[in-house]
Amino acid sequence: MKFEVTILGSSSATPIFNRNPTAQALNVNERLYLIDCGEGTQQQMLRYEVKASRIDHIFISHLHGDHYLGLIGLLSSLHLNGRKDPLKLFCPEPLKEIIELQFKYSETNLQYPIEYYFTDPLKPAVILENHDVTVETIPLNHRIACTGFIFKEKKRLRKLMKEKVEQLHIPIEFYSRLKKGEDYTDAKGRVHKNDELTTDSAAPRSYAYCSDTLYDERYFNQIQGVNMLYHEATFLHNMLDRARETHHTTAWQAGDVAVKVGAHELLIGHFSARYKTLNDLLDEAQHVFPNTDLAIEGRTYPIS
Amino acid sequence: MKFEVTILGSSSATPIFNRNPTAQALNVNERLYLIDCGEGTQQQMLRYEVKASRIDHIFISHLHGDHYLGLIGLLSSLHLNGRKDPLKLFCPEPLKEIIELQFKYSETNLQYPIEYYFTDPLKPAVILENHDVTVETIPLNHRIACTGFIFKEKKRLRKLMKEKVEQLHIPIEFYSRLKKGEDYTDAKGRVHKNDELTTDSAAPRSYAYCSDTLYDERYFNQIQGVNMLYHEATFLHNMLDRARETHHTTAWQAGDVAVKVGAHELLIGHFSARYKTLNDLLDEAQHVFPNTDLAIEGRTYPIS
Repeated sequence: MKFEVTILGSSSATPIFNRNPTAQALNVNERLYLIDCGEGTQQQMLRYEVKASRIDHIFISHLHGDHYLGLIGLLSSLHLNGRKDPLKLFCPEPLKEIIELQFKYSETNLQYPIEYYFTDPLKPAVILENHDVTVETIPLNHRIACTGFIFKEKKRLRKLMKEKVEQLHIPIEFYSRLKKGEDYTDAKGRVHKNDELTTDSAAPRSYAYCSDTLYDERYFNQIQGVNMLYHEATFLHNMLDRARETHHTTAWQAGDVAVKVGAHELLIGHFSARYKTLNDLLDEAQHVFPNTDLAIEGRTYPIS
Repeated sequence: MKFEVTILGSSSATPIFNRNPTAQALNVNERLYLIDCGEGTQQQMLRYEVKASRIDHIFISHLHGDHYLGLIGLLSSLHLNGRKDPLKLFCPEPLKEIIELQFKYSETNLQYPIEYYFTDPLKPAVILENHDVTVETIPLNHRIACTGFIFKEKKRLRKLMKEKVEQLHIPIEFYSRLKKGEDYTDAKGRVHKNDELTTDSAAPRSYAYCSDTLYDERYFNQIQGVNMLYHEATFLHNMLDRARETHHTTAWQAGDVAVKVGAHELLIGHFSARYKTLNDLLDEAQHVFPNTDLAIEGRTYPIS
């Protein structure tokens, strides 16, 4: 099953040439989950051939402009391109007022419904559960209410050992029960243990998105053992004071979070516009946590 | 004196690859006047090296997203980059509410004041007059309240004929009066006519910006004889019905406006996303008004 993230924006508060404000498209089993939507996200989607029409879920971490100012334009374009299906929007409550005010004055009556799900910045909650994933909010520590998100793949069904199953002439109708882990009793009353008939499916993977936050151990527990951790790394550690003042994290700290939570991989992003090149940020994080990569726009990172 | 316009966006409602929503930077004597500000305008300014810090005046024609959704991001970036000088914003009144709501929820206290000047979509008005230009609104006919803008250079002072002035030993203190057109009386009481001592300065130029509008003769009078007319040309004329329905103009009609108002040059833009190439739009407008050019992003058009 596909489980990969494409970076659409990697800049912090102000864009610089070739770096856009934050946005990511998570592909889970060919459905796209858009995470944050900075200004220009729809243009980035055109550039990198990420199809807006395949998005049914949008997650907004907080209401600083660099994380949501591309949303109204994207919602409008979906409308103008004929979308009819509902769109689920997970966001801080005031975003509804912002969206409705702008559509009121542009006299836009969306042809599709937006289903709002408001996030609580104070306590973690499961906000979405479907066939493919469970999504939980991660309360972060930023200047304004802000939540990250953790996406956990659903455990897949067990896989039939085809040869064994056919050899025993197990009726096809029973296959779905085998996949769920049941034993099989044949016509002679002999019990065949499930683990002789099926193999386990791959372990479910997880992706944690920690946008703007102060380094704060309170969110570590929730992302323990995550497969891929995206963590902001706005500054180098020599700007720790500035990071604290603005409620951001340094590259060193992002590496340290990855170590403390036992992540498999770390992806850093939300780079300050002051860094024209990103090598120093990568080096610093890798020094603490070697399996670190930079969130580069247009690149897709498989989560394994 | 510099009088030229740089195109930052040329697309209509939805962006397409390589065409952004509407924005233009008019350079008048090295001061930038930003006209409309679609999503991604600040990124376009970075791309084409148009310095945001040189903007003191912003004009928003109407509240469809493709004409203003880049504004909040630009205002934020100016703030984060340390702007202190006031910024004059000419716009429909509800834009103030939209801006203030978003800054309230992002807890942004701008370090510089925005001075609002609300446009009246029903009657033309001079909304700005300074040393270099006069700006008037042009009431247009769109689905929602919408005004274009006409920028008229101020008439420059007359130029001294240096040789004559020195030959007559006219005191330097009198030069400014000569430039304003006064005659000069010498010590012997002899009157020297001004036009023997000075030459006229170049004729003032004008630039009219007609964003989204139905073809409507009511605004023709105001743009009569304009040097450069920017006019939307969303569709080809074979889509006239669609143009009427959405209150837009065809390329043929844009050419016809230029003919009727006796413009010197026509620039067409606001192209529908359905046109991947623009040749047909240009051909159609040129068929009616040969001196037509396409508004191409990143290009600067001198107004002469």
